[in-house]
Amino acid sequence: MREQDRIQLVRTLVRKLQPYIPGEQPRIKGLIKLNTNENPYPPAPSVLETVRAAVDGRLRLYPNPTCAPLRERLAKLHRCQPENIVVGNGSDELLAMAVRAFVEPGHPYNNGRFRHTVQYFDPSYSLYPVLAEMHGSVASATPLNPDFTMPTLQELRRGRAHVFNAALTFITTPNAPSGRSIPLAQLDKLCGAHRGVVVLDEAYVDFAGENAMSLALKYSHVLVARTFSKAYSLCFQRVGYFVGNSGLIGALHKIRDSYNVNGLGQVAALATLDALPCYRDGFKRIIATRERVSRELGLLGFEVIPSATNFIMAQPPKFPAAEWLKKLRDRKILVRWFSQPAVEEYLRITIGTDEEMDLFLKETRSILKK
Amino acid sequence: MREQDRIQLVRTLVRKLQPYIPGEQPRIKGLIKLNTNENPYPPAPSVLETVRAAVDGRLRLYPNPTCAPLRERLAKLHRCQPENIVVGNGSDELLAMAVRAFVEPGHPYNNGRFRHTVQYFDPSYSLYPVLAEMHGSVASATPLNPDFTMPTLQELRRGRAHVFNAALTFITTPNAPSGRSIPLAQLDKLCGAHRGVVVLDEAYVDFAGENAMSLALKYSHVLVARTFSKAYSLCFQRVGYFVGNSGLIGALHKIRDSYNVNGLGQVAALATLDALPCYRDGFKRIIATRERVSRELGLLGFEVIPSATNFIMAQPPKFPAAEWLKKLRDRKILVRWFSQPAVEEYLRITIGTDEEMDLFLKETRSILKK
Repeated sequence: MREQDRIQLVRTLVRKLQPYIPGEQPRIKGLIKLNTNENPYPPAPSVLETVRAAVDGRLRLYPNPTCAPLRERLAKLHRCQPENIVVGNGSDELLAMAVRAFVEPGHPYNNGRFRHTVQYFDPSYSLYPVLAEMHGSVASATPLNPDFTMPTLQELRRGRAHVFNAALTFITTPNAPSGRSIPLAQLDKLCGAHRGVVVLDEAYVDFAGENAMSLALKYSHVLVARTFSKAYSLCFQRVGYFVGNSGLIGALHKIRDSYNVNGLGQVAALATLDALPCYRDGFKRIIATRERVSRELGLLGFEVIPSATNFIMAQPPKFPAAEWLKKLRDRKILVRWFSQPAVEEYLRITIGTDEEMDLFLKETRSILKK
Repeated sequence: MREQDRIQLVRTLVRKLQPYIPGEQPRIKGLIKLNTNENPYPPAPSVLETVRAAVDGRLRLYPNPTCAPLRERLAKLHRCQPENIVVGNGSDELLAMAVRAFVEPGHPYNNGRFRHTVQYFDPSYSLYPVLAEMHGSVASATPLNPDFTMPTLQELRRGRAHVFNAALTFITTPNAPSGRSIPLAQLDKLCGAHRGVVVLDEAYVDFAGENAMSLALKYSHVLVARTFSKAYSLCFQRVGYFVGNSGLIGALHKIRDSYNVNGLGQVAALATLDALPCYRDGFKRIIATRERVSRELGLLGFEVIPSATNFIMAQPPKFPAAEWLKKLRDRKILVRWFSQPAVEEYLRITIGTDEEMDLFLKETRSILKK
């Protein structure tokens, strides 16, 4: 058979897809990396010890396919059953699986359209619309208020009759990239109004004052997403999970890869749950640094959005944000800038160690003086 | 909103799905586990050492999102470019991604049906039809010969005019669960005849006499799947990869999760590539055990399919295969039995250490004597 007799091999949908671009992961010496919201502190020594001790002949065996021991421990932590939990290869895998489990592909032009709709708030995690596109379903962005707070139910309904009908709605809480928290009472009302599945993506919740785990157990259509990556310093090992109704969770189990979570990741996550007090001390430390840096940036003329996360979004003075990105990078400090209209005037700055943030502030002052 | 006003939350397709059931992973003491084709020998000491040494503060950072260093090393090994390689969270993840990248969902009743078709051979890896169902596309089983050899092109065409038109065809080579090899010359002809994407799933190829990697570089529509799980004793760490045309590989990169391969898995795979001679000695050892056990089972009245893998498929005498499964399990030996008609008369027995296989043979003789 000649090449030209072959059919088009790659789906049109995939050919047209603009993939999600993750933040840079350079390994440049001396670079201060404040761009992908990693925890500046390493995992607890006991976690490293436990993982090291597990590196033996067992690597030849398949890991636990359902993450049973980890789900049992998480169920105790969150006061639910293992059936209420599914673990993923990072929470990113679970977000993608939620689209495949709960949303129909296709773009019909009729009343059934909402079955095909992935709704998310703008700005939030820019992966959501990519997941919708990838599945061939409808991506629907609902704007947050200009100050990145969540509109009221009434405001959301205005001019958007079907806002609560989407098959799947992602709510990043606290919001990223703004860092804003959404009060639990408001999330409760919001969940109550939705007819489809709601995923409360709590990737950064350990740095916030309250969390919405109770809603995953209160409502049969609400899932809470958590991750060991950021707060628990395990980005490298890819472990995240969803908590919620066993019907929804069971659907996700049905469509996941048989051995989706690597064994040492499971070991690391279990050891982390044995060392929670140690991590909670770390959260306090990062929150203290965040508050100090927020204040100092305010004094330097930055407009800082109040953060409930391990990063700060701030509008810098004097130069456009994109220019700040470059000037900081020239000084070996890497922060994140997003080109989307809603946030293009802002920088997102991950909270590093106190030493890193002092250097960041020093370089910031030096840029301002020039 | 009342519960009953909610829309159906889980897609009908997912509700109806019969998920893939992986082999049991019990951790029972004293059990001889010959059911999931794991390598009985641990990873090379240098691999364990390297992984242990990597368990440090870096766990807080994201792993390389594109597996760049690993893809460079694999490209050298296979004499291609890094653009010809995509790494997955085990090859299972890549098999699922291939369906999503190359096959349209839906079941149209017209000439376009082949764009929606996932073809596979029966018997082979029972995951393939599940992946097709999960995507909402057409699963099409093409039977192998009764002795599990691959039919000729002419035989395949007979009564199946569109057999070479499927959007995606999976070929397990050597075949699993039969263990039969497919000669390279036959695979070459088969690939040449296909109009859609062909995935040559070489999960067990390190135990075979030849491999088909050359076809992935010869044809723009052929991908070869490899894994570090079985031959390289890294099931626990979930690392597999596809080699092929950069157009197909690029499509898979576009739809994969940003950080789909955990960091310690990447470290382990890289260290494995530094220790290949050590693993090749292990393959020889497993092949020698396989040949010895095949001979001995033949003498005991088993009908043994010639194997090019690290397992044996054999039809046992005296009792039905399902009964053998139970009798062996009672003696703490776990093998695999599949209920599909094509193979229900067979047991699939993973090759363990010589000691394990001696025990297996001893218990087999004891069952035969009763």
